[in-house]
Amino acid sequence: MAKADVAIIMGSQSDWPTMKHAADTLDQLGVSYEARIVSAHRTPDRMYDFAKSAKAEGFKIIIAGAGGAAHLPGMTAALTPLPVFGVPVESKALSGEDSLLSIVQMPAGIPVGTLAIGKAGATNAALLAAAVLALHDPAIDAALTAFRAERTAAVAETPSND
Amino acid sequence: MAKADVAIIMGSQSDWPTMKHAADTLDQLGVSYEARIVSAHRTPDRMYDFAKSAKAEGFKIIIAGAGGAAHLPGMTAALTPLPVFGVPVESKALSGEDSLLSIVQMPAGIPVGTLAIGKAGATNAALLAAAVLALHDPAIDAALTAFRAERTAAVAETPSND
Amino acid sequence: MAKADVAIIMGSQSDWPTMKHAADTLDQLGVSYEARIVSAHRTPDRMYDFAKSAKAEGFKIIIAGAGGAAHLPGMTAALTPLPVFGVPVESKALSGEDSLLSIVQMPAGIPVGTLAIGKAGATNAALLAAAVLALHDPAIDAALTAFRAERTAAVAETPSND
Amino acid sequence: MAKADVAIIMGSQSDWPTMKHAADTLDQLGVSYEARIVSAHRTPDRMYDFAKSAKAEGFKIIIAGAGGAAHLPGMTAALTPLPVFGVPVESKALSGEDSLLSIVQMPAGIPVGTLAIGKAGATNAALLAAAVLALHDPAIDAALTAFRAERTAAVAETPSND
Amino acid sequence: MAKADVAIIMGSQSDWPTMKHAADTLDQLGVSYEARIVSAHRTPDRMYDFAKSAKAEGFKIIIAGAGGAAHLPGMTAALTPLPVFGVPVESKALSGEDSLLSIVQMPAGIPVGTLAIGKAGATNAALLAAAVLALHDPAIDAALTAFRAERTAAVAETPSND
Amino acid sequence: MAKADVAIIMGSQSDWPTMKHAADTLDQLGVSYEARIVSAHRTPDRMYDFAKSAKAEGFKIIIAGAGGAAHLPGMTAALTPLPVFGVPVESKALSGEDSLLSIVQMPAGIPVGTLAIGKAGATNAALLAAAVLALHDPAIDAALTAFRAERTAAVAETPSND
Amino acid sequence: MAKADVAIIMGSQSDWPTMKHAADTLDQLGVSYEARIVSAHRTPDRMYDFAKSAKAEGFKIIIAGAGGAAHLPGMTAALTPLPVFGVPVESKALSGEDSLLSIVQMPAGIPVGTLAIGKAGATNAALLAAAVLALHDPAIDAALTAFRAERTAAVAETPSND
Amino acid sequence: MAKADVAIIMGSQSDWPTMKHAADTLDQLGVSYEARIVSAHRTPDRMYDFAKSAKAEGFKIIIAGAGGAAHLPGMTAALTPLPVFGVPVESKALSGEDSLLSIVQMPAGIPVGTLAIGKAGATNAALLAAAVLALHDPAIDAALTAFRAERTAAVAETPSND
Repeated sequence: MAKADVAIIMGSQSDWPTMKHAADTLDQLGVSYEARIVSAHRTPDRMYDFAKSAKAEGFKIIIAGAGGAAHLPGMTAALTPLPVFGVPVESKALSGEDSLLSIVQMPAGIPVGTLAIGKAGATNAALLAAAVLALHDPAIDAALTAFRAERTAAVAETPSND
Repeated sequence: MAKADVAIIMGSQSDWPTMKHAADTLDQLGVSYEARIVSAHRTPDRMYDFAKSAKAEGFKIIIAGAGGAAHLPGMTAALTPLPVFGVPVESKALSGEDSLLSIVQMPAGIPVGTLAIGKAGATNAALLAAAVLALHDPAIDAALTAFRAERTAAVAETPSND
Repeated sequence: MAKADVAIIMGSQSDWPTMKHAADTLDQLGVSYEARIVSAHRTPDRMYDFAKSAKAEGFKIIIAGAGGAAHLPGMTAALTPLPVFGVPVESKALSGEDSLLSIVQMPAGIPVGTLAIGKAGATNAALLAAAVLALHDPAIDAALTAFRAERTAAVAETPSND
Repeated sequence: MAKADVAIIMGSQSDWPTMKHAADTLDQLGVSYEARIVSAHRTPDRMYDFAKSAKAEGFKIIIAGAGGAAHLPGMTAALTPLPVFGVPVESKALSGEDSLLSIVQMPAGIPVGTLAIGKAGATNAALLAAAVLALHDPAIDAALTAFRAERTAAVAETPSND
Repeated sequence: MAKADVAIIMGSQSDWPTMKHAADTLDQLGVSYEARIVSAHRTPDRMYDFAKSAKAEGFKIIIAGAGGAAHLPGMTAALTPLPVFGVPVESKALSGEDSLLSIVQMPAGIPVGTLAIGKAGATNAALLAAAVLALHDPAIDAALTAFRAERTAAVAETPSND
Repeated sequence: MAKADVAIIMGSQSDWPTMKHAADTLDQLGVSYEARIVSAHRTPDRMYDFAKSAKAEGFKIIIAGAGGAAHLPGMTAALTPLPVFGVPVESKALSGEDSLLSIVQMPAGIPVGTLAIGKAGATNAALLAAAVLALHDPAIDAALTAFRAERTAAVAETPSND
Repeated sequence: MAKADVAIIMGSQSDWPTMKHAADTLDQLGVSYEARIVSAHRTPDRMYDFAKSAKAEGFKIIIAGAGGAAHLPGMTAALTPLPVFGVPVESKALSGEDSLLSIVQMPAGIPVGTLAIGKAGATNAALLAAAVLALHDPAIDAALTAFRAERTAAVAETPSND
Repeated sequence: MAKADVAIIMGSQSDWPTMKHAADTLDQLGVSYEARIVSAHRTPDRMYDFAKSAKAEGFKIIIAGAGGAAHLPGMTAALTPLPVFGVPVESKALSGEDSLLSIVQMPAGIPVGTLAIGKAGATNAALLAAAVLALHDPAIDAALTAFRAERTAAVAETPSND
């Protein structure tokens, strides 16, 4: 069995500065994860193998980030029964609009729960994964509650010019 | 405790022809749900009360559909620790592009797992909810597997002119 | 009663460089205001409390700025009978197109008077608030007239290469 | 002095099916108004005269609707100190995206409080005008409160298949 | 060996009214083809098998049509060395803008030669395939020349009101 | 009578770095022009006066540049029978898409011949004005012919890595 | 010499329902014209010959309408020194946004004065052509003045429910 | 006969930093090519001559890159029976969205196989050209296989923070 509940996969090393925010957030929440590079286009065999065996490996949730014609989240979702959350990585020319539409506009039958473009989306994919795990894991539930309370407390009353 | 695992909420009766596809899909998969109208804008107190008590009521997942400046999914997510899946309902002038961006572009901290615009998105929100529940519910897991197998089998080999 | 006619609220400290232009403009016009951070997503309770009590506190107009899936202006408008003017803060990936649509595309029933994306919008929200107050406040009316006359006079006749 | 608090102006007769929703809403709220056709492009002198004299005529608020390269709201705002609320009328080819951007993206100095594209926007322009007038008119304040309460009460608890 | 030079694949039966234009055009040009339904999302194994064996089966060119988050063309291109031409099928909410971006915005390394949205694109995919085959097939070259000459000749000198 | 054939007007000094390209091009072609700042929003009276008297002043063509909710070209066209060519100045948030739609989407009756966003558009407005003047001015015709010949001759045969 | 001042060209018979509005408007104004089908893509030689000889044939202005990847206006402008006005014909999937960008975004050096998408644009291309001709043709000048006066007079004072 | 199988053409020297990626990729694959500047707008005669003679010169495939109102790929395709692959060069204001639509939205009859915006598209145009040539050239086939294998092998298993 996997030592990790969550798999964070991404299409290339260049997606890591974005997807690292998912990893960091899972770290903060005490959620176990593995981060792997799985390119739908350059390593389709690896993607097939990964996605087909992800459940048997013990993963519970897959976070997949990709940019441009972003096929990794949707193809992974087609190959596994596990919940897949997609992160549209900001692309150069079209600022991630292409990534977003390529991920979110899945046809009926194969869902990808899509988050915001870029770093906010990566952070939120981790939080959504934690919320799913928290349904049956009191420690994660508590960590998530604390995380949100902290962030609420951190909102100042008034804006500062400093 | 709630008799239902999933709450399907929507901003208005006019969203029901879209969101009904979520309900129908959950029916097919044997997942319990309740469908309610909760308008972020016309009934903000109802939304507040619903979202704040959803976890205590026993819901595990919330599916929220809305159109235009679609605030229901994100505001619900801000008020509950439960996973929230958002369905952008097709709007008149902008065809749901406004709904999509209003739902998916959440800031870091409060995730909404967003599905496709319209009926496909509603169906997929149900499938994603089922995939989450299937992590700890073998019956739903089996139903989901069967659902997907059926759909795969239903794909003809060649296109038909009939 | 509030010491201020206008409340300037924003979703986060990062919106202040934009929203400060509303504050500065109100300062120029002699309109009293308070600036507060009220996050729809991180501090929904604060938002509910603020918006529900804004009228009783004596505010007359609310200027609300937010970016991305910008729910603050519309949710505030749903919770108060006061006029709400919304400022779409420029977002990173989509340049404020998401902010604009999330604010302006409100359903029938709950209006948000929306201004331009970014600093121009913040300045204009202040001017619109002043125009509303000027209907019953001759001092603000005079200040607004002077402000506009000054700006008209400041337009050079010909472009300069300096 | 004008017999009406609000002027509803529009670029052409073809905008009336949209702008009529503003008039109907003002009727419901007991707000006095006049509806006129004032084309920025075909009758620029009429626009100039109307806008320059609107305050002296006794109008307090102007609601302006236009489609395509929609210049009426912004030009009116440039010619009067009164608050101007703009309604982007849905255009044929671009579905009102052109109308929206032409109205909302005003430069710093001349604000137009912009509502949603189409009928919802027209209704909301009336509600926003009423909210402004309600600041000093208890009857309109009461009517607005009743209007909103009615709409809140009209939201069913559950969706209906009928 | 395949009896056909071109494979026309599509994600679902609903794409056939579009993709039929590719088939009809190949018929007109005397190019052999097979049309198959291969869904990236519902039948990923079939896609994998098809694409991996397409070259060995004797196909020379693949025309792939899909709509929405259209992954079929790009995934096929990742699994075969054959040239792949993609046809963005018009989608409901976003009119094929999502299909287009999902197909054309492929990362460096895996090309999809993308045609226009809808029927024109399907016709043109066939013509492009024929142009490729014509490089080594004089009969197709002649057919293509005749096809183009006919179409040129069919352009009237002046528009007709009939 | 005016000493100039062309008036170059723009909404603000900040448009000059763009519109200067129109002036420079007219200089190259020997076309007389005057450049003025005429803000539709801040100096509407100046705009009315300018546009109403432009023909009597002897101008033959007006080039108008503006950004954002760009009303100057269309309003000028509504106030003069002279041909008006519009230049969408690149705006900050929306990169001139708002400027373009605000200028080009004029209703039937009042045309603005619109050029590309930014400096290319300013240059081309000058060239188009020159082409119009060249219809009755052999010197400008010759200058334009020379200008185009020079530019054609300046296109290298092969790209250079220097 | 040509018997006509204006050439109306279009890419196909299917553009005529749009471009006919240009012809009808020129008829109303007493401007002579010829309407021809000249396809940049299907009849490139005809386009080349037409554009190269248009000036010698006596045409003064060219109105060119096309849809989709609309190359006719820009290519004609590259082949003639005459002023070219472009009309983006509404396309099926993208509603003319593709036509507009393909026509208006010309590089510095070759201008196309672009009008609105669709029928309004065709009407306005005719009016702009007439405005150019009116610079040296008092009859057209008078007709244009009358045309505009008539349209101004036709604007009702108030909207009608009939 | 040409010494080169592929012609890389582009509208201007400024496209070379993008199109060089096509040249570099062909170099890597051992495919012969010639790179030329052929501007549809500034050198239309050169474009006609080039495209009309390209087949006779011995070219087999044309790669054409252009930005903005990008007419070069489509016009070339209209003038030659050879397969044309188009590369939308990233434009300044609209980031290549205009280039993409101007190239890909060709009408039925004249195909341009369009690649992604920018450098990725240029690289992929070369790969697609190689895939076409590989159908009858075992050396290119082998080079392409090696190229893809190398790129697959270069994908790391896990992301690196270095």
